[in-house]
Amino acid sequence: MADYSPHPEHRFTFGLWTVGNMGRDPFGEPVRHKLSPVEIVHLLAEVGAYGVNFHDNDLVPIDATPAERSRIVADFKNALRQTGLVVPMATTNLFTDPAFKDGAFTSNDPRVRAYALQKTLRGIDLGVELGASLYVFWGGREGVETDAAKDPVTAIKRNREAMDFLCNYVIDQGYELRFALEAKPNEPRGDMYNATTGHMLAFIETLEHPSMVGVNPEVAHEHMAGLNFLHNVAQAWEAGKLFHIDLNDQSFGRYDQDFRFGAVNLKAAFFLVKFLEDTGYAGSRHFDAHAYRTEDYEGVKEFARGCMRTYLILKDKAARWNADEDIRALLAEINADDGSLSHLTGKYQPAKAQGLKAMEFDRAGLGARGLGYERLDQLTNEVILGAR
Amino acid sequence: MADYSPHPEHRFTFGLWTVGNMGRDPFGEPVRHKLSPVEIVHLLAEVGAYGVNFHDNDLVPIDATPAERSRIVADFKNALRQTGLVVPMATTNLFTDPAFKDGAFTSNDPRVRAYALQKTLRGIDLGVELGASLYVFWGGREGVETDAAKDPVTAIKRNREAMDFLCNYVIDQGYELRFALEAKPNEPRGDMYNATTGHMLAFIETLEHPSMVGVNPEVAHEHMAGLNFLHNVAQAWEAGKLFHIDLNDQSFGRYDQDFRFGAVNLKAAFFLVKFLEDTGYAGSRHFDAHAYRTEDYEGVKEFARGCMRTYLILKDKAARWNADEDIRALLAEINADDGSLSHLTGKYQPAKAQGLKAMEFDRAGLGARGLGYERLDQLTNEVILGAR
Amino acid sequence: MADYSPHPEHRFTFGLWTVGNMGRDPFGEPVRHKLSPVEIVHLLAEVGAYGVNFHDNDLVPIDATPAERSRIVADFKNALRQTGLVVPMATTNLFTDPAFKDGAFTSNDPRVRAYALQKTLRGIDLGVELGASLYVFWGGREGVETDAAKDPVTAIKRNREAMDFLCNYVIDQGYELRFALEAKPNEPRGDMYNATTGHMLAFIETLEHPSMVGVNPEVAHEHMAGLNFLHNVAQAWEAGKLFHIDLNDQSFGRYDQDFRFGAVNLKAAFFLVKFLEDTGYAGSRHFDAHAYRTEDYEGVKEFARGCMRTYLILKDKAARWNADEDIRALLAEINADDGSLSHLTGKYQPAKAQGLKAMEFDRAGLGARGLGYERLDQLTNEVILGAR
Amino acid sequence: MADYSPHPEHRFTFGLWTVGNMGRDPFGEPVRHKLSPVEIVHLLAEVGAYGVNFHDNDLVPIDATPAERSRIVADFKNALRQTGLVVPMATTNLFTDPAFKDGAFTSNDPRVRAYALQKTLRGIDLGVELGASLYVFWGGREGVETDAAKDPVTAIKRNREAMDFLCNYVIDQGYELRFALEAKPNEPRGDMYNATTGHMLAFIETLEHPSMVGVNPEVAHEHMAGLNFLHNVAQAWEAGKLFHIDLNDQSFGRYDQDFRFGAVNLKAAFFLVKFLEDTGYAGSRHFDAHAYRTEDYEGVKEFARGCMRTYLILKDKAARWNADEDIRALLAEINADDGSLSHLTGKYQPAKAQGLKAMEFDRAGLGARGLGYERLDQLTNEVILGAR
Repeated sequence: MADYSPHPEHRFTFGLWTVGNMGRDPFGEPVRHKLSPVEIVHLLAEVGAYGVNFHDNDLVPIDATPAERSRIVADFKNALRQTGLVVPMATTNLFTDPAFKDGAFTSNDPRVRAYALQKTLRGIDLGVELGASLYVFWGGREGVETDAAKDPVTAIKRNREAMDFLCNYVIDQGYELRFALEAKPNEPRGDMYNATTGHMLAFIETLEHPSMVGVNPEVAHEHMAGLNFLHNVAQAWEAGKLFHIDLNDQSFGRYDQDFRFGAVNLKAAFFLVKFLEDTGYAGSRHFDAHAYRTEDYEGVKEFARGCMRTYLILKDKAARWNADEDIRALLAEINADDGSLSHLTGKYQPAKAQGLKAMEFDRAGLGARGLGYERLDQLTNEVILGAR
Repeated sequence: MADYSPHPEHRFTFGLWTVGNMGRDPFGEPVRHKLSPVEIVHLLAEVGAYGVNFHDNDLVPIDATPAERSRIVADFKNALRQTGLVVPMATTNLFTDPAFKDGAFTSNDPRVRAYALQKTLRGIDLGVELGASLYVFWGGREGVETDAAKDPVTAIKRNREAMDFLCNYVIDQGYELRFALEAKPNEPRGDMYNATTGHMLAFIETLEHPSMVGVNPEVAHEHMAGLNFLHNVAQAWEAGKLFHIDLNDQSFGRYDQDFRFGAVNLKAAFFLVKFLEDTGYAGSRHFDAHAYRTEDYEGVKEFARGCMRTYLILKDKAARWNADEDIRALLAEINADDGSLSHLTGKYQPAKAQGLKAMEFDRAGLGARGLGYERLDQLTNEVILGAR
Repeated sequence: MADYSPHPEHRFTFGLWTVGNMGRDPFGEPVRHKLSPVEIVHLLAEVGAYGVNFHDNDLVPIDATPAERSRIVADFKNALRQTGLVVPMATTNLFTDPAFKDGAFTSNDPRVRAYALQKTLRGIDLGVELGASLYVFWGGREGVETDAAKDPVTAIKRNREAMDFLCNYVIDQGYELRFALEAKPNEPRGDMYNATTGHMLAFIETLEHPSMVGVNPEVAHEHMAGLNFLHNVAQAWEAGKLFHIDLNDQSFGRYDQDFRFGAVNLKAAFFLVKFLEDTGYAGSRHFDAHAYRTEDYEGVKEFARGCMRTYLILKDKAARWNADEDIRALLAEINADDGSLSHLTGKYQPAKAQGLKAMEFDRAGLGARGLGYERLDQLTNEVILGAR
Repeated sequence: MADYSPHPEHRFTFGLWTVGNMGRDPFGEPVRHKLSPVEIVHLLAEVGAYGVNFHDNDLVPIDATPAERSRIVADFKNALRQTGLVVPMATTNLFTDPAFKDGAFTSNDPRVRAYALQKTLRGIDLGVELGASLYVFWGGREGVETDAAKDPVTAIKRNREAMDFLCNYVIDQGYELRFALEAKPNEPRGDMYNATTGHMLAFIETLEHPSMVGVNPEVAHEHMAGLNFLHNVAQAWEAGKLFHIDLNDQSFGRYDQDFRFGAVNLKAAFFLVKFLEDTGYAGSRHFDAHAYRTEDYEGVKEFARGCMRTYLILKDKAARWNADEDIRALLAEINADDGSLSHLTGKYQPAKAQGLKAMEFDRAGLGARGLGYERLDQLTNEVILGAR
């Protein structure tokens, strides 16, 4: 068997809120005691993680005094030093406090919008202080239960105003910090704005400084809408916007599960890992997941180890898939191009259009050709199963 | 009771394929005989439609000779003249023929991609000849059943190459024609690229001529992904990209139903009509739907009349909602802004950031405030129900 | 306008946990302060409810001493006396406490299973003491995140053993109490056993005392699986098993929303109310819902009033639908039966089978007949909209 | 590598309509030419299947004359003899013909209901003639698009009347034939009655001869409702009702995909195969699936081989899982029972209830115990991946 141990070059990261999740859910009380940020850093070091990410209030409680903040940050930095863990990413909690019950940047209340800005400015300062080069925005409350309550166009404009303000702040401060926006279709709101990574990519193009803003796609969030996660990641990558990624797992069309990476669909996870490795994605592999509520902290460690181990097993399988002779032969056949039509396609020229319009195509022949995808997919399954 | 009869100013349009749908489905044979395009035009005139849209092969069969094409087009133009109907939109069928079984613009076969371009060039010519000012693209086969079969980044690049080619063709020909891209998450493919209107909006921004390309959101397609359709429409509108709209209805998370407008969810339909009327959307209200398979052509007419009638009833209700005193009072309260924070928000200035960071907010007070959305939503329901 | 005020004969009930819901969710802290059971009873009396239901721990905290229990129960009875509210139903909370993290009756731990039995026995005693004639079972934790963890056949057997034990206890005590089982497909578990009302009905038939056990279907729970709620209710009713019903609303295929009755889909709510009224269902109309998290307790009252008011508006519309001449004519036509085939159908006789096998049917004619369902559905929509 | 070749003892069967599927879908024409039943039998023999199942009209066209029927049946029997294939199951097509557009047994038209009975009586005779011992009922059109059109209680009664009639016919004829009912939530109807296997199991209990009627659960159909298929199968098995099974694959919450077994979710397929093998299920492993529309008949054979091969690989993995020492140790721990509470549980006795009510449980201790499910699930994934 290959070695599937995590190493720093794998860039495996976890949020404080992931292994620190206490197992509370809508119908149940916490099942695990609270760990301090320092304890979490040590737990992550023990299982082999490279980095740790946080929401402002994962680290510094919302009602901490300046003195408490100083002490907490110092302790946290110390733990990072001791363990060698880094902080690649930070973010703001704009959803837990009742003040945000109707949204933060899109709230109908101008005071809430201003408070959300303040909280994010402070969160950015904290993230930068701890070394983060990426700042994630998940607008957990930016949505509605009824469209009577908020005009969706107004919501977009408010959201843009906030993002532009914050981009300018980062530029103004001279921070080396990029933003990554994270989409989710629903939960905790009935419907959330910018419901998918696609909507986020479109929204980014309307900002004042689009080049410093990318996306943070999350497996579970696209699966909630029954979407192919790989396609979302690919669109972001192709647009140069894949700044970060949240790995976990989730069944289609239900509540936010945040399961261990690969827990639901190993094949979808395989294609994702293959994509990240084939393209040379250089960012964090961030596991935004948490252990089942049946677990104690030993189970939490198994959960964290499992996330990374599954990733590495699938990375190995991706290499096998790429090297498999039968698969290579099939791919060559599938993608065959004798170049005979290249003079009519590609970049537009009037003559190409005229040439194309005059061509005769063997329509029946094109339709009759078998493409071999059943065989290719079966070979893929067998690589995943370790049966070839 | 108000008059809910359709008139040309309502811009109600139907595709040839909608009222002409023969009721075939994956498990059943057609239940209605085939109508000719001319018969469909007369049927639409009878029920009061303003315009008729078509796929190239709805009008001209894929294997028609030039002479047949000429005769068919002449007959169709004649029917338009007789009835006064117009053709605001045309599109290409790139999904029915087996040649397109693995996609058209994104097919792995360069001959199929070239043939798809040819077919679209010819379809554009046909559409322009019949007066269309809008050309819709629904990539019914642009997707996969297994991600082993096609690289999603390659698919995006192929799709873009085709769109850029076609935009340049339109410019080159001097056509007054804009494009509208229509998203769908799945069916007939396992997963389709550019799965939602959001993905399409993002894709458009990467084209060579983005200003001539907008979207054609369809209720059913976003509902298949369980998304809030209004939010998709609003994002397109706010970006200046709502070039066309496909009205129908559909339950969340299942096969493509294309039901009569309002058939599933009257409240969602209400918010949509209200949005289109409040914003002054000036394009077609295109019903991309078909009658139940239980119907004969009398039922098809009832179906078409029902689409328009429901729209007009909901338009009337939108006006009532806007005029309702209780609702207006609630909205005023919900959106109250005394301007006291405007000096710290809006366009970024360093001093604003400093001011914001130093502010004290009454966090508990913000969270404790009741927002009245249950009452507002109940009043909305009662307007819809005609109970106020 | 008709009077849509609630009266005792409407049998509108709410759980203590519904209007008492504090607005906590997976991503947010409570937004409303805790009300005592007595305060909730008075709130419900103020809005016009007929009855109040409870989980054991809604009334008596899980760690209450016997003395505390006595005092709480006495206060509650006093509030009932003062307000005239009754307690038609009680149930057990077998999901909040960490002890039940892997299920109650289906837990792998025999101590947990025994503790769940104990808690239910005590809950039954409490319910009976307060006048409940119905006891609901919602197995909130009876499920898995991974099928590796629990054998589903074992789970069924454990569940049955518990239900048989409890039925016998009720009989043994001479209680006038029936059971109603409530299904849910998922959340808080990844997958829950007896996922729908159908599964529950099948499970009941395997019990020792099936006649005392029925179901408690909930709108939101069937909608989570994208199912037609009316069909579930109808199957339960037809089997004599509709002992109770939980009214609320919910979009298909997502997290458990528990919205105000009618908040999502007025048409589905209409058919449901029509069914309950047409059949003469005599049980509680229990609203198992809660107010949006944006609300204070004024909003909670609006929420509760809205649930009842929408029911009564729809009841009125159901009567209009039944009386509508056009609808009646359509229904008569749709259901026409000249009796000419009745000698070959109905109860089996060998001669009928032979006669049927020899019949000639006009297959094409049967298929060609238009059924008028588009018109019927449009008329239905217009009744709902108040447009006829 | 182990041998994963299919053999008769594996009882792998396919319907005529599966490998014979021509690749028509709602948006596309057939991509494969029609094969005769004889050709399909030979194709199935070539890939190693054990048996072949059919709908009446897969074998004998709906408009065949008696002479044509005789010839077709003779040819088919001959092909069976030549190949050694058997016919374990037959069924009726009650969905393709327009006559059934509003249902068969539940149609509002008494002539359609009678014609459906006739067609099924004849289909039963045909199935028995060809050796089938099981007859499947999939009510493809038994549902509605609008609940205005059909009373759901009436539909249940009609469905029951038909099933009782047919059961009595089988008894009367002395056929050795059992029935298996197959549920589906929607498609081709908006909502179908008896939407899941659970609903079917409940419905069966209301029949006149429930012992001769079981279920035929299908992976894709339960996945359309986002349900755990294993749980459905387990409930049927535990009730002695798992008479047949339809294996394929399908993403949750979308159109009916009927993909190759294991194509979507290998883990779900693993638990299913493990269940069937562990319990000793002795019926057919019927693959109710079809090849992608991209395939020619070589691809169809790859598809069929892939279904069987994946089953056998997963069967092998199930044996490994059962034998894995770490997994066995975890399971022993998870299911530990020292018997100390067995005197208070199990079959009811008054003294047990009193004893239980008086017990003291260490509630906090029960909640604090870690259950090791993350580790168990990760080990399971690694068995599936071939990484242990």
